[in-house]
Amino acid sequence: MQYIDDLNWRYATKAMNGVKINDSKIDNILEATILAPTSSGLQPFEVLVIKNSELKEKIKPIANNQSVITDCSHLLIFAAWDDYTEERINHAFKISTEIRGFNQDWDNYRKRLIDMYVGRDAKENFEHAARQAYIGFSFAIAAAALERVDCTPIEGFKPEAVDELLGLKEKGLRSVLLLPLGYREENNDWLVNLKKVRKPKEDFIKELD
Amino acid sequence: MQYIDDLNWRYATKAMNGVKINDSKIDNILEATILAPTSSGLQPFEVLVIKNSELKEKIKPIANNQSVITDCSHLLIFAAWDDYTEERINHAFKISTEIRGFNQDWDNYRKRLIDMYVGRDAKENFEHAARQAYIGFSFAIAAAALERVDCTPIEGFKPEAVDELLGLKEKGLRSVLLLPLGYREENNDWLVNLKKVRKPKEDFIKELD
Repeated sequence: MQYIDDLNWRYATKAMNGVKINDSKIDNILEATILAPTSSGLQPFEVLVIKNSELKEKIKPIANNQSVITDCSHLLIFAAWDDYTEERINHAFKISTEIRGFNQDWDNYRKRLIDMYVGRDAKENFEHAARQAYIGFSFAIAAAALERVDCTPIEGFKPEAVDELLGLKEKGLRSVLLLPLGYREENNDWLVNLKKVRKPKEDFIKELD
Repeated sequence: MQYIDDLNWRYATKAMNGVKINDSKIDNILEATILAPTSSGLQPFEVLVIKNSELKEKIKPIANNQSVITDCSHLLIFAAWDDYTEERINHAFKISTEIRGFNQDWDNYRKRLIDMYVGRDAKENFEHAARQAYIGFSFAIAAAALERVDCTPIEGFKPEAVDELLGLKEKGLRSVLLLPLGYREENNDWLVNLKKVRKPKEDFIKELD
């Protein structure tokens, strides 16, 4: 299958060449991210898209000075809800009602979610929202590969510093992941020519039958 | 793009018809899962594959009695490492050395990872491993859509009960996610004909420039 070739082609790009990604490819990658499933469909995160060079320059030192932060075309930041609130849950169901119409069972489900999440420890709620952000992040990585766009999945940065720089705390968001999208600079990338490493299939996939 | 159509086609299937998925499709979905990127390439989770009806029957009551558990073709269980250990990190680097050859910088990186992870709170390490499992899970969901195979992403089940049933604790694993794979039973699925709901793009994707 072509997509298996695409996923083999991708790697955590260590150097990018500054070339811009065309809008249709970016639109597809973002559309795939929107289509990622999330728990109860709440989509409890946002995706911030940065093209501005100055802003990238400010983020670089709080992301281990990785060159891909400034040499990418588009920098995606996945920022999860800091907590589940009644307002946020109601808003998600309002959208659902607009699209599908009102349904009493679904409204009862809304109430059950509010009972479950609201008032629960904010840290636990954030952790759950962050996991949903990983699903969107993963869909973006896979879609980029299918578009033959390079990316660098990044967990290692100072989230509090990114949150402060972008005013995320005031919006009830916490940055979780960075995803620079762009094109590999083969001459400067120590990883580009190394073989992909994965465990042998039998160490990773276990048939229990 | 075809893959956007595929991702629009997928939904959290609520009823499956028991039809078996052919081996080449399952192999591709599992291959995509193997190709999911993970932090430092450690792949800190395993994917358990269950086809056995009796085992599915035992799991069903600890997964909210969802019919897809027994009516799916293959049930995937994503089980994350309960902790990062020196042995596990060394094993991952051993595989890397076998494929790429020895590299002193890479060996120094191995030591830094051991310093960082080993001895850190096991709960924090498990949480990090679980997030990596979400990436594999997401790649499996996306690949299933591309194969036009249905699936039901499931977070809601009793992980301790699954762990006990499958003896995962003794293996240093903790179940995190279930993914029944199969084919939709349209006549019994309340969700199949409802419109897909997503927030308006401008509420979810924010350009910061």
